[in-house]
Amino acid sequence: LSEFRKAIKHKVRFLPDNVEIIVDRGTNLLSAAMAAGVHINASCGGMGVCKTCKIDVVSGNLEKSHRENVPETVLKPEFHQACRTQIYSDLVVTVPVESRLDKAVPAEEKKKTSGVSLSGWKFNPPIKKYYLELPPATGDDNVSDFFRLRRELKKAFDLADVPIDFTVVRKLPETLRKKDWKVTTTIILTSARPSKNNNIPRIINIEPGDTRSRNHALAVDIGTTTICAQLLDLNRGKIVKDSIVFNKQISYGSDVISRINHCQQPGGLEKLQELVVSSLNDIIHNLLGNTDIHIEEINFMMLAGNTTMTQILMGLEPKYLRLAPYTPVADFLPPVKAASLGIAVPDHVYVYTFPSVSSYVGGDIVSGVLSSGMHQKKKITFYMDIGTNGEIVIGNSEWMVTASCSAGPAFEGGGIKFGMVAMNGAIQDFSLTPATLEPRIETIGRERPRGICGSGLINIIAELLEAGVIGQDGKFNSSKSKRIREGLDGNEYVLAWAAETQIGQDIVITEVDIDNLIRAKAAMYAGCHTLSRSVNVDCSEFAQVIIAGNFGNSLNIEKAITIGLLPDIPRDRFTFIGNGSLSGTRLLSFSSGLFDSANKIARMMTNIELSENNDFSSNYIAALFLPHTDEKAFPSINAKLRKN
Amino acid sequence: LSEFRKAIKHKVRFLPDNVEIIVDRGTNLLSAAMAAGVHINASCGGMGVCKTCKIDVVSGNLEKSHRENVPETVLKPEFHQACRTQIYSDLVVTVPVESRLDKAVPAEEKKKTSGVSLSGWKFNPPIKKYYLELPPATGDDNVSDFFRLRRELKKAFDLADVPIDFTVVRKLPETLRKKDWKVTTTIILTSARPSKNNNIPRIINIEPGDTRSRNHALAVDIGTTTICAQLLDLNRGKIVKDSIVFNKQISYGSDVISRINHCQQPGGLEKLQELVVSSLNDIIHNLLGNTDIHIEEINFMMLAGNTTMTQILMGLEPKYLRLAPYTPVADFLPPVKAASLGIAVPDHVYVYTFPSVSSYVGGDIVSGVLSSGMHQKKKITFYMDIGTNGEIVIGNSEWMVTASCSAGPAFEGGGIKFGMVAMNGAIQDFSLTPATLEPRIETIGRERPRGICGSGLINIIAELLEAGVIGQDGKFNSSKSKRIREGLDGNEYVLAWAAETQIGQDIVITEVDIDNLIRAKAAMYAGCHTLSRSVNVDCSEFAQVIIAGNFGNSLNIEKAITIGLLPDIPRDRFTFIGNGSLSGTRLLSFSSGLFDSANKIARMMTNIELSENNDFSSNYIAALFLPHTDEKAFPSINAKLRKN
Repeated sequence: LSEFRKAIKHKVRFLPDNVEIIVDRGTNLLSAAMAAGVHINASCGGMGVCKTCKIDVVSGNLEKSHRENVPETVLKPEFHQACRTQIYSDLVVTVPVESRLDKAVPAEEKKKTSGVSLSGWKFNPPIKKYYLELPPATGDDNVSDFFRLRRELKKAFDLADVPIDFTVVRKLPETLRKKDWKVTTTIILTSARPSKNNNIPRIINIEPGDTRSRNHALAVDIGTTTICAQLLDLNRGKIVKDSIVFNKQISYGSDVISRINHCQQPGGLEKLQELVVSSLNDIIHNLLGNTDIHIEEINFMMLAGNTTMTQILMGLEPKYLRLAPYTPVADFLPPVKAASLGIAVPDHVYVYTFPSVSSYVGGDIVSGVLSSGMHQKKKITFYMDIGTNGEIVIGNSEWMVTASCSAGPAFEGGGIKFGMVAMNGAIQDFSLTPATLEPRIETIGRERPRGICGSGLINIIAELLEAGVIGQDGKFNSSKSKRIREGLDGNEYVLAWAAETQIGQDIVITEVDIDNLIRAKAAMYAGCHTLSRSVNVDCSEFAQVIIAGNFGNSLNIEKAITIGLLPDIPRDRFTFIGNGSLSGTRLLSFSSGLFDSANKIARMMTNIELSENNDFSSNYIAALFLPHTDEKAFPSINAKLRKN
Repeated sequence: LSEFRKAIKHKVRFLPDNVEIIVDRGTNLLSAAMAAGVHINASCGGMGVCKTCKIDVVSGNLEKSHRENVPETVLKPEFHQACRTQIYSDLVVTVPVESRLDKAVPAEEKKKTSGVSLSGWKFNPPIKKYYLELPPATGDDNVSDFFRLRRELKKAFDLADVPIDFTVVRKLPETLRKKDWKVTTTIILTSARPSKNNNIPRIINIEPGDTRSRNHALAVDIGTTTICAQLLDLNRGKIVKDSIVFNKQISYGSDVISRINHCQQPGGLEKLQELVVSSLNDIIHNLLGNTDIHIEEINFMMLAGNTTMTQILMGLEPKYLRLAPYTPVADFLPPVKAASLGIAVPDHVYVYTFPSVSSYVGGDIVSGVLSSGMHQKKKITFYMDIGTNGEIVIGNSEWMVTASCSAGPAFEGGGIKFGMVAMNGAIQDFSLTPATLEPRIETIGRERPRGICGSGLINIIAELLEAGVIGQDGKFNSSKSKRIREGLDGNEYVLAWAAETQIGQDIVITEVDIDNLIRAKAAMYAGCHTLSRSVNVDCSEFAQVIIAGNFGNSLNIEKAITIGLLPDIPRDRFTFIGNGSLSGTRLLSFSSGLFDSANKIARMMTNIELSENNDFSSNYIAALFLPHTDEKAFPSINAKLRKN
């Protein structure tokens, strides 16, 4: 039968892109979209769970087909999940705006923060350009081109016997003679070794004439959802431009586990590597656009990412990241030629990667900790990066412990009925008019609402909790609002009526959504609690709490404490660091001395595995309440709730 | 017209290979043969000079065609020069045995000499294998794979923080787990930097299980004419096998100048690189054949060659080697991944190259000097490598001067009417029966004669000089032999009658041949004389004369002195070193300590350019006589000649 099916082909057209593809009968619609290059949001990785891959059927007989062997979905009749649809006729489908990723642009952080609390670092980029006017070759001085270069580097700059990349040797004869033996040689001053001899320089490029005035780098944070990058001027120590794009791997699941799973399929790792490289190439294109900087002027690329993202980019098998005992391939990666990974930068550019700690505490955390400067302080700092995978670090200049809490995708809008990543149209702020208890919503980009992002969700739940619309158990109190109704997933609260939205549907928050958020915040809080106890520290001893990650400045501290995500300590101890990981990559691009600090931080961090920790399990269960079952842990919140 | 011609195609079949190719009307026959993969000897590089590219027409109308716009050749009617023939009809041609290169095998050196006079070196190969039984990853010890490897290398072998090739990082997860955390890691112990920090180790490979018993290397000498290589066992310090092949670049000219010239054509460098790589791949195939050694067991490749051969192999523009002031690209090359050059060895193998001195004194000379041990001696040694490009070195442990003399191709059979390289059928030894003055010839492989190789030519001329058949001016004395006759190129002496040969022609030596040899030996001798004078040394002060190169043991010292190629000093001071260049590559493969010696030798050599030296010109003219115009310089020879 399956052979017979393959003989029959169907044509599928995707709107609004108007892309057509011919596929075998029985092909999965999400796969067909991927094959056609049409990106559809599928945060669960095509498991049929997240319901983000909605498509709209324009023509074709879908009723008959998509229900073969697959359970009925609870979508409205005109919507279908691409991942659960098999193709049994010619089709024309529309990918609605909320399912499309590559057309959307994630919101930039509201306020730009330098994000750097590190002190005492010296501007001394790892890439230096040296201009040389070589004596021309003569009968009396006909040494080799490379010897001449070495001799003058020694004479003029006391750089003796600097190793050279072979690709530079190939360029020597023409480059030396092009502008009358005047050349600029680019030297990278660090070999970024795991622990010593970091300052072995290396000739990575040579150009005719004096090009010292042009020396740029890329600082890149590769996130599971978004990629953030900065174009840096290494002469002036300035950010030329910022950019952010989606990680195109999103079509294969919103969390690292879905990505790792996809890598186990034939060609899966190559495919995901190709997608992240394509995303990187897009962001590089964005960064250079409307500048006078040419791609050839990029000399360095500093990268941080979580362990999974880094391994996939580098083509390193991620399988063992998710199998106990959870071992990464490498804590420390040697510099790799960017072009060898498919990254569209010149041949001479190496990618340097932040060292990592464990399978779930990656270079992005080391990078963030570096930029937070917590390794310079005597007092105890608590560092947290809130996300699908929440990473936490506790420590000071003497010691650090770290853990990762699998919070699930709720903070990034995943598993939430109308959840979405923080981009235009996402509900971000929420309050109730005191008199009417009618909601006032605020969206990113001030567009009509399309969904709810993570920080919006926290604000909504905190506000409804304080107003008693939601109880401390996370259930709706129907008597408190007319907006509460029974929906397909149980009780729900209408945030915006269909007519007010971009998507033509009521945007609601359901009890299932609330439950998902409670579980996410409980995981983060229990992680914090367990890690603190493991080093006999109480939350009250944190001199500073540094919040990094996508939330950036959009997280409301008071609301986050209200729901029990953050500990109930004096509010002035909280600091937002924004994208600390990106800041760290910029710091290393500006200061080669910090390579040693980064390696030192990675080495001093002790990783605690929470997944197999009994304390964590009980702490987690205790935290499945708003804000927490232990009233003493949240004195100010409980006082406020009792008052209302 | 040329457009019109291109529209017409002709079919050419080459016998005995029976290879067919369809080409545009007007295509050059040598080019067509090259395109068809049929290798034809063309030592002048297709300039129409050397007459070695003879082909035999079986069918097709060649008379009409090949004479368009090209001068008449002096070949017998049934022979044509491929390089001077354009195709104007379908053709069937035979490539006769003397024009075919790839079917022939060059003669191995008669006696195998170790060729090594170096003393005091320690067996300590630059490649070491380390076997590790790693503790398996557990929940309490889930460090990264690379960290685990580093930790155990430090613990078991005190190798701390060894840098790793990225390709090895990619292999770590599977390799570590394949044989229960038992692995063998291959570390290269030298970074071969130009002058210091040579002993930075580097992890280049990792294999599951214990593979320590298999560790091999390739030592390779890339000559302009032949490539010699040895397969080495790095555990036992033994040569497993020797092999020699022609450098397929020969079709583009026998000397380095023709090769450099060809590189100036579009795609020329790439083509010649491809040919030498193809020759290397052939020799590697030969070396591994009939052994139990698998290509994956090759871990190292040490190479020496003249500067031109090295630059072409590495894809380095050779143009400036032949333009004053004659600058090479690099005296010192960083190790290069062999696979990146197209060499068919595993990905992890680096090619290390001997450092060189100048455009015409290459790594092969440095390698030969190293294996001769002359850098260890207080007394003065004279080192010479006789060939198309004759290189000479004078010096001791304190100083060395070097020069290169453009002798021309006569010593390798080039420019000689029946000249050929030293392979089966080449006349190698020659004597006259005292009573009859009839010649007795001896050929390589005891086959019927096909031509004359370089050492044969020296022996013939010396013998005929002593017998008075040739005068000291290089002219025939017709009264002395009935074998002297007038040929197309002036007087000639018949060495073998057509019926006695493989080629069905009389094999002769002409006055033009003698003249070519006199010019070649004069260049070598004048070089030696000029270089000696430049350091105020007289030939009589040479404690040792080391003769390296293709001649090997086949050179007859007495005869070489007789014609004035070698200085007239006590015969026991002469030593043959055979292929000193190959010996040096073997030595470095066996002893990493010698990398420093090789670099030191290259740096201590002072290169003297003879081409622009006035003394050299007058010394050269003075040497255009047999043995020399200065009778006092050759007392024993002149005494012998006077006696006869």
